[in-house]
Amino acid sequence: MNERIAIAGVGLIGGSFALALKAAGHKGEIVGIGREAERLAEAHALGIIDRGETDAAAGVRGADVVLLAVPMGAMRDVLVAIAPGLDANVVVTDAGSVKGSVVADARSVLGSLERFVPGHPIAGTERSGAGAAFAGLFQGRRVILTPTAEVDTAAVDRVGRLWARAGALVEHLDVGDHDRLLAATSHLPHMLAFGLVDALARDGDAERVFRYAAGGFRDFTRIASSDPVMWRDVCLANREALLAAMAAYRDDLEALTAEIRDADADGLLARFHRAKSARDRFCER
Amino acid sequence: MNERIAIAGVGLIGGSFALALKAAGHKGEIVGIGREAERLAEAHALGIIDRGETDAAAGVRGADVVLLAVPMGAMRDVLVAIAPGLDANVVVTDAGSVKGSVVADARSVLGSLERFVPGHPIAGTERSGAGAAFAGLFQGRRVILTPTAEVDTAAVDRVGRLWARAGALVEHLDVGDHDRLLAATSHLPHMLAFGLVDALARDGDAERVFRYAAGGFRDFTRIASSDPVMWRDVCLANREALLAAMAAYRDDLEALTAEIRDADADGLLARFHRAKSARDRFCER
Repeated sequence: MNERIAIAGVGLIGGSFALALKAAGHKGEIVGIGREAERLAEAHALGIIDRGETDAAAGVRGADVVLLAVPMGAMRDVLVAIAPGLDANVVVTDAGSVKGSVVADARSVLGSLERFVPGHPIAGTERSGAGAAFAGLFQGRRVILTPTAEVDTAAVDRVGRLWARAGALVEHLDVGDHDRLLAATSHLPHMLAFGLVDALARDGDAERVFRYAAGGFRDFTRIASSDPVMWRDVCLANREALLAAMAAYRDDLEALTAEIRDADADGLLARFHRAKSARDRFCER
Repeated sequence: MNERIAIAGVGLIGGSFALALKAAGHKGEIVGIGREAERLAEAHALGIIDRGETDAAAGVRGADVVLLAVPMGAMRDVLVAIAPGLDANVVVTDAGSVKGSVVADARSVLGSLERFVPGHPIAGTERSGAGAAFAGLFQGRRVILTPTAEVDTAAVDRVGRLWARAGALVEHLDVGDHDRLLAATSHLPHMLAFGLVDALARDGDAERVFRYAAGGFRDFTRIASSDPVMWRDVCLANREALLAAMAAYRDDLEALTAEIRDADADGLLARFHRAKSARDRFCER
């Protein structure tokens, strides 16, 4: 409970991690690292961090654990920026939505993965920034750690204990499995929602289109309010797995379209029944 | 407040309509019509209807207003069944999600549209049945009436007043406009959600796929828990408009896929920004 923790990127995820630890009684200093002093000052004023540093290397000096909670596209630059300040025994972890690209970045920048523990909290809201952070964000949510064989097991345990203290359920997955599974259940749905809202917004009749949208549409498109920079970066970082998921989905949508075109009542009913029973079985328990 | 109202199909929509009127002080008898005596008895026990009738013609006899709240595919059969019992001055309306097909059914079965007021409450949940009905379902929600030029304006006003009494905001649209707009914001999203959940459920690794799904996935796929029969019928009843919406969406998804394949960072960011600002502008006010 006395570790010094440095958090690069004090937004929704990094800020909520700090607040969750504080709520659980964490006593060690929590240092926020960011490029903009103003945003660090806001995070300090909100009681999220004890100290802010715009100099990344200075920010991680003396830290026991460093959490990288920046968009995927900034991971490599942040690793380069903190590297000069890292102590020999420090444990570095991250909260990125894609794990293969972070592992590759860490390997090339740090030279070794021994003390790098890739992680991904399956939590978030469509809001972003320190002002959206709250202590309960990770309560009961899964955090997936994807350590490679080279990673020190004590480092993995240390990161796992921190997330558990923040209220999360910690699980381990292979890097490739993680990226494939998340492409299907997170990255692909975001593409479908962003794509739908963008298409409707370009409709000449957009005002009326959205006027008559029901609650189901709001639920369906909520994720289209997510941070555009974060999602651009996820697309680029998990390109192969995402393209595979999109190709499979397109084929499926073609089959569904053919059933509608052919007025295949039985095929449509069977498809909708399968989907409903899977949704009810997997998501509501 | 003293009209006798007959409701064919005492499920989520028909049941909530009855409860909303009762909550607003409606004193006239509310008759429920259905094929299964047991379900009518349940609706009666729940205080939703005053009387149940499995004989449709008997159920509408003496009614001032008849609401058809059955799946789209049953509309024509129900119109045929009630026709012998309809009084000369009765007003018939419906709550179907597609209007073109109901108008065609009403025209062919009733012979005239003079007293038929097509309607569509933009409200619902993913649950169905009388047990899911509640008085507040239509509170502040839009109900779209799509009367053709032949419809008696007094009949339109009468139906509009009932919906307003149930708490809804009543608006008018052209039949074709309605079906095109709803194909885009309701029918298409349901296809995308049903399609996604069905595809993932058929994945050999489905247990793990759903295990790591986040809150965004649950929101996105909530509509895939909707009634399969209702949605099969919507697909068939609004086939042309839905196929057009799906074709446009497929083209858009291809463009998005190409941006990911080409690592077009600027194109992706612009698309996600457009979507986010449209979602924030249209859906959260």
